[in-house]
Parts: sequence; structure tokens; C-alpha cells
Amino acid sequence: MRQLNQDTITQAVLARLAHTPDTRLKELMTSLVQHLHAFARETRLTEAEWRHGLEFLTNTGQQSQGQRQEFALLSDVLGLSTLTVAMNNGKPAGCTEAAVLPALPGLASDQDGPACQLRGQVRDLQGQAIGGAEISVSPGRGAEWVHALSGSQGEFSLDAALAEARALPTDGPVGQFLAATACPAWRPAHVRVTVRARGYEALHTEIFAEGDPYLEGDAAFGVRPALVAYWQAQADGSLALNYDFILNKAMA
Amino acid sequence: MRQLNQDTITQAVLARLAHTPDTRLKELMTSLVQHLHAFARETRLTEAEWRHGLEFLTNTGQQSQGQRQEFALLSDVLGLSTLTVAMNNGKPAGCTEAAVLPALPGLASDQDGPACQLRGQVRDLQGQAIGGAEISVSPGRGAEWVHALSGSQGEFSLDAALAEARALPTDGPVGQFLAATACPAWRPAHVRVTVRARGYEALHTEIFAEGDPYLEGDAAFGVRPALVAYWQAQADGSLALNYDFILNKAMA
Repeated sequence: MRQLNQDTITQAVLARLAHTPDTRLKELMTSLVQHLHAFARETRLTEAEWRHGLEFLTNTGQQSQGQRQEFALLSDVLGLSTLTVAMNNGKPAGCTEAAVLPALPGLASDQDGPACQLRGQVRDLQGQAIGGAEISVSPGRGAEWVHALSGSQGEFSLDAALAEARALPTDGPVGQFLAATACPAWRPAHVRVTVRARGYEALHTEIFAEGDPYLEGDAAFGVRPALVAYWQAQADGSLALNYDFILNKAMA
Repeated sequence: MRQLNQDTITQAVLARLAHTPDTRLKELMTSLVQHLHAFARETRLTEAEWRHGLEFLTNTGQQSQGQRQEFALLSDVLGLSTLTVAMNNGKPAGCTEAAVLPALPGLASDQDGPACQLRGQVRDLQGQAIGGAEISVSPGRGAEWVHALSGSQGEFSLDAALAEARALPTDGPVGQFLAATACPAWRPAHVRVTVRARGYEALHTEIFAEGDPYLEGDAAFGVRPALVAYWQAQADGSLALNYDFILNKAMA
């Protein structure tokens, strides 16, 4: 029988995982266990901290229901969502950048804000208009999502709304974490956009507003310079935004 | 405004955590974020895997209630519990080894098994008897825990029971994980023991039974050679076990 101690336990766990039939799951778990153990070793995690961590994770799971997905929030504020999006959506320069993960089923819908007319064109990297693209925007005026199809010149127009700047929920574990680490809890105003067209990669992104005080400190690390646009105030108090979406060709 | 991408996101998160007032929390989170991001980078985590991981963690939190602590089970099967115990309970050679974390409040109690008379002596590394030590054992005969105090020669005797070998719960996320990774789900038969004495480090450990078929493959990585003992069958079908506990002096 093998002696299990702080020097041998990692190899013992990896040896057991070596029999995982699915090679991708084996690869994921092998890396995860090594990093989890390295974290505990580097920090010399105490038993009290271990217990506190388990309670935090349990509370995070229990806070999730329906519209509230607390682990997705945790992933956002730890930068894991942005890292995952960035790794999986590498596009040539000139394409519109992806900025958010496709909403999870049941993820909180955006709150409505001032009405906004969103106009623009969908085209490819060579400047060719893409007709028949489906543009979906949340929040829409009077609805969770609104949809439009681009015309033959790639043009589209949508009755959207601007989801006003708001704080992430502060009544759960993620709120406690943000308070304890003195990290900002606010997300800037934005609209969430998905663009799909046959033969092109789907684009999930967010458009932010020039001058928003929360751009630098976005709690979810979603802002990119190219996704910040000028929202023009109209005489009737509504907003107008012109924004073009440049799609990347899908691989054959 | 900074460009956030897969090369810059980790530093952006760490820069934000740098303002954490509690220096230990800052240290823990800095290490955790680096390892979490390194895991995602090394494996090139996909969006579907990210989503699956969040669902797994959410289910793990939601499975926890009352006697069932699913995140503690997950920590056990990933070897994190054993690593944490080993790092925090380094003792001089000759001391009885720690093998389990102090039970969480509400952690499932051990199931009762055959009655067992547990006898032994509590002493220190120099062989000096420790009187007045409190020995607590679970499962006890007819009760969750039974307690005894050692006499002036360190001797004690307890009416315990042997928690029979059993599988970890298979109806939750940890059970699914063990099935998917072809890892063993069984824990060998054992008694759980805590020994406390003034001036000595508290000892939380488990004693296993020689010949148990699950010693090598303990799902929770709790077995150590020195913690495996011979349980003697008695004429009436009960068991008898002699085991001495050697405590380490507490630091002044």
C-alpha cells in the first residue's frame, strides 16, 4: 500500500484518473487536479480556509435558480468568461469582436432602459454586404429580444433599448466576494447583440456607450475599445446608434 | 481603455484584486485566478465545456443539504481533502497520522456496523502516558459518537462499531464524475476517531481493517499503512481492536 502524503497525493489522483475512457475528459481533469493541488500547495491552504471555500461554493450553487446563475457571475468577475470567449473567438483584425458568452438558459434578462434606434450594415472583411443576416438584440423595446433580417445591401434597423448601467446582485456569494476584494460591482450600459448569417461565424457581443463612467471598471470584463460607440440623443429623448457588424467567414 | 484579450485578461483581473484589503484573501485569490486561467489556457477550454462546468458546480451546490455535503465529497475524490490534511498536520515520525478533515457540520454520519470494542493507550512521542485525554469515536454503539476519557496510564476502552465499506452516493454530481472517470466509488470499513488532550495537537483520523478489499482504492484517499489495524473477531460475532494513539505536543 502506498503512503499518501502531501508529496504523493497528486500523482495518486492522476494515476486513478488515467483510466478515464473519454480522452478529453481525462485531459481536462488531469490539468484541473494539478492546478487545484498547486493552488493549495502554493498558498498552504489551511483547514479553515478549505472549509470556508466549500461553504462559498455550496452557497454559490444554492443561490442559482431560474434567472439567477451565480456561478456564471462568478466566472465573469474572475475573468474566466472573457478568457474563454477570447480563446474561442479569435478573428482576423477588422472583424467585430465577441465580448460575451452566449447567454445561459435562464440567465437574467437585461433590464429595459431608454429606447434606442439601432441601425447599421452587416458585411464581410472584404466589404461585401451580407443580406439575410439575422440580427437579434436584447433588450428590445417592449420585449426581451427583438430580431431583424438585413436587406440586400446588408442594412438593418431595430427598435432596441439601452440596458442601463447596473450593479451585479449584491445579496449572494459573488456580491460578498466583490465587497471583500474591493472590486467594482457595476456593469456599464449596453445592448447585447447576436448576428447570424449562413457561411459566417455567429457573433455574440455587446455594444457600450461612449462616456459611460463604468467602462474602465466593468465588473464582468466585457468592454473592448472597438465595442464602445456614440449613442446620439434624439429630440424626443430616445437614442440613436449606428453600428456596423463585420463577420468572419466560417471554416468550410 | 485597455484591450482585453486572452493575453491581457489575467493581468487585468490580478490588478483589480490588488486592492483587496485582507492580505491573505488577496494572496489566495491571486493564486486561484492564475491557476484557473492557466487551466483554461492549457486545455483550450471550449465554450460548451465552460457551460458544462458551471452546470456541474451548480448541481453540486444544490445537491448539498443537511447530512449531504457534495462539495466535501468532490474535494475528497479529487484528493484536495487529503492534501489539505497532510499540509496542516505534519507531525514527527512516530505520531499517529491524521487522515480526515474534521467533520463538517451536517456531514453525513457513518452508518453503523458490527459492534467493536476499541481499547488502547494515549501517549506522547517519549512514551509518556497521557491521562485525561478525550477519545471520541464514530460510529459508536447505538449512538452517532461515543466518548471516553483516558485513565492515569493513558488507557481507554470504548463501545464502538465498524462503519462498513460503502460506496459514496451515486445519485449526484460526484457519483456521475466517478462513473465518467471510471474511478472507484467505495470507501473501506473504518472508525473515525478524534483525540484531544491539553497541551497536545488534536488528532482527527480513521482506523481501517486489515484485509479490507477497498484499502487500495479508497475513493477518498484516506488510507495510510499505519492506520490499517487487525480487527479481532470475538466469539459473539463482535470485533475487538487494540490501537494506541501517539499525540504530538502543541506549540507553546
